[in-house]
Amino acid sequence: MTQLRFALAQIDTCVGDLEGNASSVLQFSRMAAAHHADVVVFPEMTLTGYPIEDLALRRTFREAPWNKADQLAGVLRDEGLGNLYVVVGTVGSAQPLAQTSAGERKDEETARGPRDVEDESKAEGKPTNRLVVLHDGVVYAGYDKHFLPNYGVFDEFRIFQSGTRTTILEIGGVRIGFAICEDIWQDGGPVAVLATCGIDVLLTINGSPYEEGKTHTRLELAAKRAAQVGAPLIYVNQVGGQDDLVFDGGTFVVDADGTLLERSPMFMEDLGYFDFDSQARRQKPGKIHELPDPDEEVYTACVLGLSDYMTKNHFTGVTLGLSGGIDSALVAAMAADACGGEHVWGVSMPSMYSSDGSKDDAADLARNIGGHYDVQPIEPLFDAFQGQLNLEGIAAENLQARIRGVIVMAYSNSKGLLALATGNKSELACGYSTIYGDAVGGYAPIKDLLKTRVWELARWRNKATVAGMGIGGLHMVGNESGNRGIEPDGGVIIPVNSIEKAPSAELRPGQKDSDSLPEYAMLDKVLAAYIEKAHGRADLIADGFDERTVDTVMRLVDRAEWKRRQYPLGPKVTALAFGRDRRLPVTSAFAE
Amino acid sequence: MTQLRFALAQIDTCVGDLEGNASSVLQFSRMAAAHHADVVVFPEMTLTGYPIEDLALRRTFREAPWNKADQLAGVLRDEGLGNLYVVVGTVGSAQPLAQTSAGERKDEETARGPRDVEDESKAEGKPTNRLVVLHDGVVYAGYDKHFLPNYGVFDEFRIFQSGTRTTILEIGGVRIGFAICEDIWQDGGPVAVLATCGIDVLLTINGSPYEEGKTHTRLELAAKRAAQVGAPLIYVNQVGGQDDLVFDGGTFVVDADGTLLERSPMFMEDLGYFDFDSQARRQKPGKIHELPDPDEEVYTACVLGLSDYMTKNHFTGVTLGLSGGIDSALVAAMAADACGGEHVWGVSMPSMYSSDGSKDDAADLARNIGGHYDVQPIEPLFDAFQGQLNLEGIAAENLQARIRGVIVMAYSNSKGLLALATGNKSELACGYSTIYGDAVGGYAPIKDLLKTRVWELARWRNKATVAGMGIGGLHMVGNESGNRGIEPDGGVIIPVNSIEKAPSAELRPGQKDSDSLPEYAMLDKVLAAYIEKAHGRADLIADGFDERTVDTVMRLVDRAEWKRRQYPLGPKVTALAFGRDRRLPVTSAFAE
Repeated sequence: MTQLRFALAQIDTCVGDLEGNASSVLQFSRMAAAHHADVVVFPEMTLTGYPIEDLALRRTFREAPWNKADQLAGVLRDEGLGNLYVVVGTVGSAQPLAQTSAGERKDEETARGPRDVEDESKAEGKPTNRLVVLHDGVVYAGYDKHFLPNYGVFDEFRIFQSGTRTTILEIGGVRIGFAICEDIWQDGGPVAVLATCGIDVLLTINGSPYEEGKTHTRLELAAKRAAQVGAPLIYVNQVGGQDDLVFDGGTFVVDADGTLLERSPMFMEDLGYFDFDSQARRQKPGKIHELPDPDEEVYTACVLGLSDYMTKNHFTGVTLGLSGGIDSALVAAMAADACGGEHVWGVSMPSMYSSDGSKDDAADLARNIGGHYDVQPIEPLFDAFQGQLNLEGIAAENLQARIRGVIVMAYSNSKGLLALATGNKSELACGYSTIYGDAVGGYAPIKDLLKTRVWELARWRNKATVAGMGIGGLHMVGNESGNRGIEPDGGVIIPVNSIEKAPSAELRPGQKDSDSLPEYAMLDKVLAAYIEKAHGRADLIADGFDERTVDTVMRLVDRAEWKRRQYPLGPKVTALAFGRDRRLPVTSAFAE
Repeated sequence: MTQLRFALAQIDTCVGDLEGNASSVLQFSRMAAAHHADVVVFPEMTLTGYPIEDLALRRTFREAPWNKADQLAGVLRDEGLGNLYVVVGTVGSAQPLAQTSAGERKDEETARGPRDVEDESKAEGKPTNRLVVLHDGVVYAGYDKHFLPNYGVFDEFRIFQSGTRTTILEIGGVRIGFAICEDIWQDGGPVAVLATCGIDVLLTINGSPYEEGKTHTRLELAAKRAAQVGAPLIYVNQVGGQDDLVFDGGTFVVDADGTLLERSPMFMEDLGYFDFDSQARRQKPGKIHELPDPDEEVYTACVLGLSDYMTKNHFTGVTLGLSGGIDSALVAAMAADACGGEHVWGVSMPSMYSSDGSKDDAADLARNIGGHYDVQPIEPLFDAFQGQLNLEGIAAENLQARIRGVIVMAYSNSKGLLALATGNKSELACGYSTIYGDAVGGYAPIKDLLKTRVWELARWRNKATVAGMGIGGLHMVGNESGNRGIEPDGGVIIPVNSIEKAPSAELRPGQKDSDSLPEYAMLDKVLAAYIEKAHGRADLIADGFDERTVDTVMRLVDRAEWKRRQYPLGPKVTALAFGRDRRLPVTSAFAE
């Protein structure tokens, strides 16, 4: 065989949902086989979902996916898919694969047949992050991730042990080398070994979370690794939201000379194809999906994160406070795009300080998205509390926010809705938020967006409605394909007034954000440098920010961070007599 | 010199408070010198505090303690303490110490003079967890921790790189080998090397958090290591609360034959001594403090954790809801012991379902501890909300708890008090708690205590009052030494009725905990096995628990854990465009 067809299965898994994930593998494998694929490739930790955090340390959890891999191999064969090579990620036992291999070579092993891996799950110690190939009814070959990222959002060294072997799988004379995610991000390791072994394809499976600008970084890096091994690199990435991470997909294939051979769409499940021809000097490019523009990309990431959080936690609707301001308006629009406007419960909770304009804007927004809209004035409740408490200043402002928090949670509890927090990154970073008040919620869709980005996305969202654009696989409220009979307000979803007016918390008469914070245009630049680039005071001044602004922003951020950490959720149940919470994913369908 | 006096400085550091920590080192060094010590030994990461979490990754933070170590060495010399060898923990630069050493030996280096280490802090990469010896005005010798724990509450591999060298310091012919905490918990590494080098003393500095029963484990382990190197082992541990961890001190020295040579008290700062005689066949035992009984030990750990959380976060008082139940009563007693009854604001928030007995018990408790006591009925507030919301069932029960949460936070905000959450581990584990309601608070003193333990500690606390006992360095309200003119109720602090009545949340008429939960005597046993020992379903049945109870408890815990994770604090400010919170300690006095 000189031609090999790879199917690239960019799927959305759920942590702990072994049944659901395996069923998705089966379904995509059927489609791949129907399209004459020889190999179908799934993302990192397909069967378990990713990231599994400390679930990896539970013995019962480690055994389950291993049994599932065996069982799935059998089902695939029974369905007549035994000829297909199905590459899935899972959790491996503590026993290194090397010990189950017939070969004796230290750096390379070439898999040609089934292995005796059944007893591995009984071994003790940390498990591995493993890739297995299901073929002919058995777990046919395997590879354990070598580099375990342990920075930023990653904690893999905590829960896994490193693989020590390199694996090459030969299919009809085509030599396929394996790597898992971080393996290609660091020099040395398996890719360096594979570069000396002569491989025809470098196949990588990934769980790489979304960050702005990462698409380019990944492609550059992959091209470098493809050149290093002198063969095309297949990069299959997970898609979907998992807890507070969003995986963007964007699976691709790049040739050794840097040519892009395939690119799957971002933010949706997909099954792409790459036809490898071992005779060809250059591989023939397949389908290359265009990239979204930056605003669409970020907006879609937020919607997908929310949508998957809802699905994976079994919520069908959301509730949130609608103040008439830009933050709650954007969150409501995202929510409507995630689950349909009819599943959004907006609650206007005006106080004695709320302007008529704000109330109108909230009502307009709710109408534009086709959402439910209730008005719950907080003044009588505020007066009842004040009759007993007589609070002043910040305490009285916080009281208003907390009464609203109680109301939002009442909607959440009584109607089974997910409460959304509407804070943006600028105000959260500066502590311009009330704990147990507006910070109440199970998910905070725009917590990673600076205020200036919130305005940009609101403008983009309105433009998209008018232009009737769609976004990656998601329904968009108010555009033609939505077809829900909604009449957007002058062709827009988010009231122009919510975008253009000066931001205010409306917790005292005439209050404006700019009373307490630097102007957002400046503030956001300083925040980006201080928080995202971790620039210290001297760096910030060298960046060109004036000393007074730097000191103001640093003081606000440091104080807010201190206060936020001072009031964590509070009680957590710990595995130790005294100690911290077990680290487990929020969304896990795993039951012992 | 054949005799060497070691001073064992068991101090309470604060993360990020370089000035305060250095000043404590200076003060204890002065005392040690006044008592003719040759060497004074401080706990792990003395200058930075421990654990520093992701602060370690901030360049500005890494540089500061290094400069501080240099400066402190100078100050010690200027004060005439240059002859003293001062062993402190700090954060090391990315550059391994080996590269700054004159010697070339790979496994061992013997330090005899100052090193050129000034430029290290400019190097890139992860820092180390370092021990330095300050002597004669300079940083005289150093050792980098080899084994970096990365399980349970520890994340050191995430933030540090391993040391690769073993260090022996010779003082007057006495060869002192160094190890840091985890280095003695694992086989191999520096202790194995030191065992082949011939040392006279094995000196370990530690930041080992409290767990019940750990005192014995540590001593056994240390005796094993002392035997392995054939020399006495000095174990100096940190004391005090840091965020959600409590360090118990309990510094000790054990000889190669297992003889305990010294033991410092638990839960308080202390300066102990160990006189090493290189001529003696057996070392002479010094002062050996008795261990507290198990109830006293756990109670004191809780009080110290709270007391330090307050001090390090600059709180002088607390507020909490007093229901008349056992949980809030025990927390209030702990708070009074931590900061004095006059700094405790108890708020009784009776509803239409609160019994007269409960109200009386709350009032009695407040009087017994000499605390403030306010009554804030929630019925009018509940009625005001219900007039708008008409909630039923659990939503109506949660509303009562959330109104109380708003009131507690109002006291916190308006009086600058730390709000305490009063939940115990049994109810938190089973989800018998309301988020944003009774779970409100910055610190939860009994979150790690099962309900049956809560009763035991309440009984112990009453007995201690009657007996006039003191607890580790802490003032106890109501006992003779307290001398605050308080007349405990019949000789007890916690009303007997609060201890003996059937537990109830009083959120609906006639409600009892046992309506929703198995009896605590049984529940707590299953929880201990399921949560602390991570026993799965099959294990639990093998443990002898009946199948129905196992399934009930597992269902409660899994559902509660899922719900708790579903409603995290919500918005966190992240360093990445999309991602999770930077991991930083709650209490950090570090300012850039």
